[in-house]
Amino acid sequence: MSDLQTPFYQIDLAKLRVNMERIQYLRERSGAKCLLALKCFATWSAFDFMRPFMDGTTSSSLFELRLGHEEFGGETHAYSVAWADHEIDEALGYADKIIFNSLGQLDRFGAKAAERDITMGLRLNPRFSTSGFDLADPARPFSRLGEWDLSRLESALDRISGVMIHYNCENGDFDLFDQQLTRIENEFGSFLEKLDWVSLGGGIHFTGEGYPLDKLADRLKAFQAKFGVQLFLEPGEASITKSSSLEVTVLDVIHNGKDVAIVDSSIEAHMLDLLIYRETAKLPQDGDHAYQIAGKTCLAGDIFGEGHFPAPLQIGDRISIADAAGYTMVKKNWFNGVAMPAIVIKDEDGTIREIRRFSYDDYKSSLS
Amino acid sequence: MSDLQTPFYQIDLAKLRVNMERIQYLRERSGAKCLLALKCFATWSAFDFMRPFMDGTTSSSLFELRLGHEEFGGETHAYSVAWADHEIDEALGYADKIIFNSLGQLDRFGAKAAERDITMGLRLNPRFSTSGFDLADPARPFSRLGEWDLSRLESALDRISGVMIHYNCENGDFDLFDQQLTRIENEFGSFLEKLDWVSLGGGIHFTGEGYPLDKLADRLKAFQAKFGVQLFLEPGEASITKSSSLEVTVLDVIHNGKDVAIVDSSIEAHMLDLLIYRETAKLPQDGDHAYQIAGKTCLAGDIFGEGHFPAPLQIGDRISIADAAGYTMVKKNWFNGVAMPAIVIKDEDGTIREIRRFSYDDYKSSLS
Repeated sequence: MSDLQTPFYQIDLAKLRVNMERIQYLRERSGAKCLLALKCFATWSAFDFMRPFMDGTTSSSLFELRLGHEEFGGETHAYSVAWADHEIDEALGYADKIIFNSLGQLDRFGAKAAERDITMGLRLNPRFSTSGFDLADPARPFSRLGEWDLSRLESALDRISGVMIHYNCENGDFDLFDQQLTRIENEFGSFLEKLDWVSLGGGIHFTGEGYPLDKLADRLKAFQAKFGVQLFLEPGEASITKSSSLEVTVLDVIHNGKDVAIVDSSIEAHMLDLLIYRETAKLPQDGDHAYQIAGKTCLAGDIFGEGHFPAPLQIGDRISIADAAGYTMVKKNWFNGVAMPAIVIKDEDGTIREIRRFSYDDYKSSLS
Repeated sequence: MSDLQTPFYQIDLAKLRVNMERIQYLRERSGAKCLLALKCFATWSAFDFMRPFMDGTTSSSLFELRLGHEEFGGETHAYSVAWADHEIDEALGYADKIIFNSLGQLDRFGAKAAERDITMGLRLNPRFSTSGFDLADPARPFSRLGEWDLSRLESALDRISGVMIHYNCENGDFDLFDQQLTRIENEFGSFLEKLDWVSLGGGIHFTGEGYPLDKLADRLKAFQAKFGVQLFLEPGEASITKSSSLEVTVLDVIHNGKDVAIVDSSIEAHMLDLLIYRETAKLPQDGDHAYQIAGKTCLAGDIFGEGHFPAPLQIGDRISIADAAGYTMVKKNWFNGVAMPAIVIKDEDGTIREIRRFSYDDYKSSLS
């Protein structure tokens, strides 16, 4: 264990390699291309390590697009729920493909993309998804995410050569994936066969332990053959799952009907999705000593969850919160002015490199 | 209306003055002191304007404490749910008072504070609150926020001269405040009369329209007289309520069973509490044309709420989202890499000053 000042996020390249090799295997067996979804993970110091295993990046804004183009390279997909007039020229300078969210956006910006020979696509919303959270469900009623009317989609065929269909969310169930892909084939097949490429978006948890990777690869390969398209996947969480931790230190232990350890971090500031989705962190569960692990902000509900430890916790003890790479660093913020976790890379030879430490000046300049 | 590039937060000093004058009136009539709660609002370019009306700041971390000390001045209260060993010396260099969250923290750091003649206090948790949200309720079961056992509190009397009791949350009901303060008097009176000062924390919405400010002032004055203490209030939202807006622009309008306008902002990135507490933004409600106003991130539920407008919305239209100062700028983040709102001050003479614009380099350096 390093003695760096906590809190810090630690990206473990040996663990990241496991995901990368699964992604590479899937690409080779299926012929599908895999693009890192920067909205989930954009810690660019890890890109040199990830680049050989993936085809490029996909993005959800101009800044992500530029980061992917400049720091990752390879194929660079540009998607945004809505581009602004003042962004589009710059965006087209970075993009290999631009995927518009609506026919209206295609109408507004398609001519500019055509002038520069940028491949265009639309987001297709199949009106179903695997999301268990209404908040994160792109098929929720009145969803603004993509087009679903076949006549509208077909009206764009003179300009687009592909679609992006993002409808999975942490889906680790291959059979469900298979069924839903069949549903897409049945409902949209006549349209898909007129395209050159289809992106199935992210949210397929195919790097998880025990996932039937061969079945997925074969299913993707068959889809490509059936419709004559190049498939893309956009793994976010699947790219970095289980690769990283948030390292924190116990600052106080209190006993108020429950044993509570207060640590030098915060769910709201450093692992925001735990708060948004009312979930609990992956804490140590080894031992007879139970503690609620809580953050140090003023928020009463700033609680990581319950952990179990082999001995009573003491002030100064380090706790490692697992699986802390996805949607964490990209959403961290200065709530309560709590010290922002440094970012650390653990190389495969065990070397620990601190690649970013945040200071008071960073806090102060986050405001003005 | 300025033609600055949206999105931006706009702090209107003429509106801010209304709150400041109410705070000043309360201070003068009651004798209570008022400290700005930086966890809610810490945009330090506004501090020159606010300083004459308030006594200083209170904080929830080392960084907030330093900001208050260096940029606001006056009385500087230092509170943190838990101080780290490596922070305490620096913290004591900025603090006029240090308020420990637990007896354990007082035991750990009290001697250091005493050496430097820093006034000490404890957080007292009365085990009730006005919060309607479990998440934000400091009196929730197993709350880690403060001490409530009278014998434990009394055991600290050789070291502390006051307490902080934060139990209100957006409480605009004076009668409820009065009842709960009476309950505190009844339950903790014998202890309070041994103290020199009591902070009642924040969450009293006394700058709101129609709030009986005189009654509050008289009630606070009577409390001070009864127990022989100096009272403090720590207004956060009450300091800046209704002073600021988030200015956004319509990027796309879609019709999917509902008319939806997509704007160049995001609740998750720029007004996070709307997402955390599942609330809706204060949107224009004047006119017959109804729209759902949605953000531009990938989050399906990135929805500000429903607005009404005098004419159909067009791409390029500006929308002003009201009441956007509290818990917004201090929590903004780079989710989806969406352009972060600039921060703008509107002077009382109408001059618009852009005091911070965030760039791609800010986004990139938020990671590494």
